[in-house]
Amino acid sequence: MPVETISWKKGRVRIIDQTLLPQKLKYLDLADLRSLWQAIRELKVRGAPALGIAAAFGAYLGIRDFRKNDFNGFYKRLKKVSDYLGSSRPTAVNLFNALSEIDSLVLANSDKPVSEIKKIILSNALEMIKQDKRVCRAIGQNGAKLLKDNATVLTHCNAGGLATAGYGTALAIVYVAQEQGKRIKVLATETRPLLQGARLTTWELLYNKIPVTLICDTMVGDVMARGWIDVVIVGADRIAANGDTANKIGTYQLAVLARHHKIPFYIAAPFTSFDLTLKSGKEIPIEQRSAEEVRSIYGCPTAPAKVKVYNPAFDVTPASLINAIVTEKGVIKPPFKTNLKKTFSKAID
Amino acid sequence: MPVETISWKKGRVRIIDQTLLPQKLKYLDLADLRSLWQAIRELKVRGAPALGIAAAFGAYLGIRDFRKNDFNGFYKRLKKVSDYLGSSRPTAVNLFNALSEIDSLVLANSDKPVSEIKKIILSNALEMIKQDKRVCRAIGQNGAKLLKDNATVLTHCNAGGLATAGYGTALAIVYVAQEQGKRIKVLATETRPLLQGARLTTWELLYNKIPVTLICDTMVGDVMARGWIDVVIVGADRIAANGDTANKIGTYQLAVLARHHKIPFYIAAPFTSFDLTLKSGKEIPIEQRSAEEVRSIYGCPTAPAKVKVYNPAFDVTPASLINAIVTEKGVIKPPFKTNLKKTFSKAID
Repeated sequence: MPVETISWKKGRVRIIDQTLLPQKLKYLDLADLRSLWQAIRELKVRGAPALGIAAAFGAYLGIRDFRKNDFNGFYKRLKKVSDYLGSSRPTAVNLFNALSEIDSLVLANSDKPVSEIKKIILSNALEMIKQDKRVCRAIGQNGAKLLKDNATVLTHCNAGGLATAGYGTALAIVYVAQEQGKRIKVLATETRPLLQGARLTTWELLYNKIPVTLICDTMVGDVMARGWIDVVIVGADRIAANGDTANKIGTYQLAVLARHHKIPFYIAAPFTSFDLTLKSGKEIPIEQRSAEEVRSIYGCPTAPAKVKVYNPAFDVTPASLINAIVTEKGVIKPPFKTNLKKTFSKAID
Repeated sequence: MPVETISWKKGRVRIIDQTLLPQKLKYLDLADLRSLWQAIRELKVRGAPALGIAAAFGAYLGIRDFRKNDFNGFYKRLKKVSDYLGSSRPTAVNLFNALSEIDSLVLANSDKPVSEIKKIILSNALEMIKQDKRVCRAIGQNGAKLLKDNATVLTHCNAGGLATAGYGTALAIVYVAQEQGKRIKVLATETRPLLQGARLTTWELLYNKIPVTLICDTMVGDVMARGWIDVVIVGADRIAANGDTANKIGTYQLAVLARHHKIPFYIAAPFTSFDLTLKSGKEIPIEQRSAEEVRSIYGCPTAPAKVKVYNPAFDVTPASLINAIVTEKGVIKPPFKTNLKKTFSKAID
């Protein structure tokens, strides 16, 4: 069983306070909109799928005490709640997608009594959790076929359960393979600047009793040259129509290093990470983040205060370096341009 | 002018307290053996050549108050001083080499009055500084030919003036090119786990007015793919007879990434870094360091306390990925096995 990153318990949203990891596993039960907003703001809950679900519950917390059967008044309140939630992490796409889905859902049901609409909003959030778990599990099952018994997987950043309501994406493959009785080991890169690998991936793998070894980002070439890595699996932030994949900074060089050492390099991602309107990775915008993330760690300065810094959040791995993309609908192999089109048209049929 | 990492001022050893960098440039004047020992122990002075010089001055500080003209008593004292200095950093080869050279020097001059031998010990230390400066400068001059105007250099760890008494090795090339009027920019990797790039390289480049940008170790592939890097130059801890080079962990993957992006990859190192008794890199022992260096930063835990860690201090870059080795006697190109032999036999002639 993966950790329960976000769930609904007795009328409250239960999350893991990820700012306390890896030192402490503490659950927070959020009973009102304001505490949920703060939890998102302070990164207590994070990861694209988990943020979408948090927003969906947030919408419900924001309107559940609306008692009158007055649709216009109710809808006005919902709008206010949505705007407020949107201000918590203004760049989180999944959060806005979730809020816009609720808006459509509510408008489509505007003829129903408000009490009924409120139930629909809650059901939607609960369904998002179920759907996320199904997707993670399917990615895990499809990807597990790629792992042999005794395989060692190298992963980067956190594409695990802590970013979703379920098994995660890249790590789902590890969890399912383990359930199937395969003995899997993981090497996790610490993933500077924000250390998601060190802080979160190692923690959740230990929690799930998967043998894990932490390395610095400087040690990837060395462990590959030693023959310790059988396969690299990472998540994805956005995938273009030709298979080019944006993911956490550092992913691209892992792919180059994997190719040099003849190690298969896999992406694990749900359909929601694909953006087929983008022809190639060149069209994916890359977020530049604060220099402070590189010049310091946990508030301790590690470099001169005035040194210039380059700090992109993501890089783009060209499709040519990717051996397969594992999705909930199956493992997609090159040529990606053709095969992505096929998979998506089948899925829509 | 490079920073004066270690020098002799009015009867005292002046060093930069490198533990305060990059926040503060503070010189320490060490007047006695015990303070010098502590400065070495606490990494206030570091870097292979600088440690050799520190030990040479340490030997002098330890015997300068010996007043009697009694060689046996004097030699006994020197032995005690040497053992004490050796206990400060038991794995620093340069430190032991310096102490053993002093021992030979003293034995060769045992017929001279003690007051004379004391002068010889001091002269030896002063000569080591001069020699180190000459070597650094020659490496810089030989390597500067490889840099075009407006070149951007990527470097790793600190192979700069802070590790030597002079210009450093890799960074000497940058400093000399700048003196020649070339406009050189540097990208420095932060170099986890010990962050020598973030803490020391950026500091000394800023001090010397070289434009420098700091990146995390995860960002190397990205900046290379963007075409920002013209050449990679790093130092070396040990070079085998076939050109295989051990250097700070992370160097090997830089070499693989450079080759993938068709960027020249250069090593800069003095003759003292070569060990021609080793046939290949396979014979270079790799120091494994404490897991705590990876699981925490400046005492702040960044990973679960019990997670397994792999923490090699160095990796080995095979000669096949190295385009040239810049030494004080010239630029050595492949095939290294033949050309290293030639260069060394010429130098000995």
